[in-house]
Amino acid sequence: MPTDAEQPRPRVLPPTIRDVARAAGVSVGTASKALNDRGRLRPETRERVRAEAERLEFRPNDLIKSLLRGRTFTVGLITTDYFGRFNMPVIAGIEDALGSAEILVFLCNVRDDAERERKVISALLAKKVDGIIVMGRSVDPRPPINVGQSGPPVVYAFSRVPDPAALCLLPDDAQGARLATEHLLRSGHRHLAHITGPTDREAVASRWTGMSAVLLEHRIELPSSRVLYGAWTEGWGYEAVGQLLEQEETIDAILCGSDIIARGVLDGLRERGRAIPNDVAVVGFDNWEIIATQTRPPLTTVDMNLHDLGCVAAERLLAMVEGAQDSGIVHLPCSLVVRESCGSR
Amino acid sequence: MPTDAEQPRPRVLPPTIRDVARAAGVSVGTASKALNDRGRLRPETRERVRAEAERLEFRPNDLIKSLLRGRTFTVGLITTDYFGRFNMPVIAGIEDALGSAEILVFLCNVRDDAERERKVISALLAKKVDGIIVMGRSVDPRPPINVGQSGPPVVYAFSRVPDPAALCLLPDDAQGARLATEHLLRSGHRHLAHITGPTDREAVASRWTGMSAVLLEHRIELPSSRVLYGAWTEGWGYEAVGQLLEQEETIDAILCGSDIIARGVLDGLRERGRAIPNDVAVVGFDNWEIIATQTRPPLTTVDMNLHDLGCVAAERLLAMVEGAQDSGIVHLPCSLVVRESCGSR
Repeated sequence: MPTDAEQPRPRVLPPTIRDVARAAGVSVGTASKALNDRGRLRPETRERVRAEAERLEFRPNDLIKSLLRGRTFTVGLITTDYFGRFNMPVIAGIEDALGSAEILVFLCNVRDDAERERKVISALLAKKVDGIIVMGRSVDPRPPINVGQSGPPVVYAFSRVPDPAALCLLPDDAQGARLATEHLLRSGHRHLAHITGPTDREAVASRWTGMSAVLLEHRIELPSSRVLYGAWTEGWGYEAVGQLLEQEETIDAILCGSDIIARGVLDGLRERGRAIPNDVAVVGFDNWEIIATQTRPPLTTVDMNLHDLGCVAAERLLAMVEGAQDSGIVHLPCSLVVRESCGSR
Repeated sequence: MPTDAEQPRPRVLPPTIRDVARAAGVSVGTASKALNDRGRLRPETRERVRAEAERLEFRPNDLIKSLLRGRTFTVGLITTDYFGRFNMPVIAGIEDALGSAEILVFLCNVRDDAERERKVISALLAKKVDGIIVMGRSVDPRPPINVGQSGPPVVYAFSRVPDPAALCLLPDDAQGARLATEHLLRSGHRHLAHITGPTDREAVASRWTGMSAVLLEHRIELPSSRVLYGAWTEGWGYEAVGQLLEQEETIDAILCGSDIIARGVLDGLRERGRAIPNDVAVVGFDNWEIIATQTRPPLTTVDMNLHDLGCVAAERLLAMVEGAQDSGIVHLPCSLVVRESCGSR
């Protein structure tokens, strides 16, 4: 048992199993049997030991159990940026799945600092975590982490590494954009535009791939002048819709690369007197509810189901801890949340 | 040492100190001395042991160290809601302060579920965490957690409990509102209004206390018809500013209870043709940058310095782990971030 010998704080020493045994008037061996539900004991003895353990607030020590079992029932969660709105739901999903398996999560934010990442991994390995989940800032490739030959299994969630042996879970951006585009076409729109993020991001490319595939299937043209790349900001959405409407009078629907961009697009449309969705329908991407439910009108948008992605990451990690082999890039489906900015008509 | 006996996954067994000793051609005792920097050894022996440990990827086992030292260098962080934008910076501050002390954080979201909270606390105590930080959804009182007589020290961050023995760290909402009101007066405004959140929240009451104290000091009246309570939403800000301007033509400045509310207020003012800040100045509360930097014009707002609050929480917890006694409600200062919605004039 740990002792408080090094802790000058004057607090009550935690009771040991000896204290419980003494209080119940039994041997330490009997107390241990009673508390661990082993051996043959009279029910009243077992009951008396448990009552004394409860009264004394005796807490079994997981550290000893971990040493004996070779598992700590802990998992390390490494995030590579500040906890943004994308990480939050993934973390909640991981926690939900691990919590129901009674596993605790070490949260470690390494902030794109390679030295900090190295230290954190070393600390997690020293704590003998059963597995590690690595989350990225985005779906763009990052280097794999190095846990050594005998390290625990690793899963990359909302993050991709260029290592075929790694398991990487990503939202299916192309499928999400397909859903959104099909919804726009089903709602009767034919003159589409796309206002999106930076050209060098994988999510931007994947979303455009999904959108253009649907347009091709329906033989609908979308000239490159109607695909506008820029920053992931509201300001860019507002500016881009101005540029777009100057050149393209006939636009009747805009798929935006994010809800933040859509927010600027909606403001720009309204200030130019365009009714939404009757003149121009708008669809976002993210279903960031604090934005999407508060725009005027509320925003139809793609949900990446990041909570589910977190759950799946945790479940597949646990399977690997139990011995399963798993690898590859797995895309998990997005869904569409329909609100007033593009309903059905 | 843990064994992989219960783990069917075919991975390499982690090397033990025996493997290191054998590879270096020394006894286990000598290897231990070399790796722990104890005892008297020839420098070349120490060096050889370390080189072999490195080559074999030997990782010392913190669990054993923790048992021997009575400290685990882990801290539990209990949050009582989904990771909102308020929790994020506090968590980052806690992590920064603990990370530099080489302590890892167990993240546990109990979501206002008492049974889940009880289980999480029990798990944290079994893991023998050195301390616990509890974060609230808001500054409104919550029941204290029960860690028993011999439990580790607890700090409440951005959260308050009705227990005089507890240490609770909160942003100084009243002082933040004072800063904002003084800035509005310094900028020449005299006809102020306040559009804020629900009447039953402590933060709402404290902010109004700070604002009204400054107005009283300057003998400026603010009739109750110009203090509007409602939801923490953009929609409420938009609606409230409409109500306000119908009755009160002379308003020249609005202090908002949150940035989200301010966002709706700015939209409402612009649609009614009021220039910001020349006709009406607006100040928010939160400095939520994704909102505050993107409004038109960008928003002057109060920053609760939540990252600093997280650092202080972690530092005071560590002092308590070392034996310090600490209790009471501590208010930490807010600061004002000046942007275009209310500059100096």
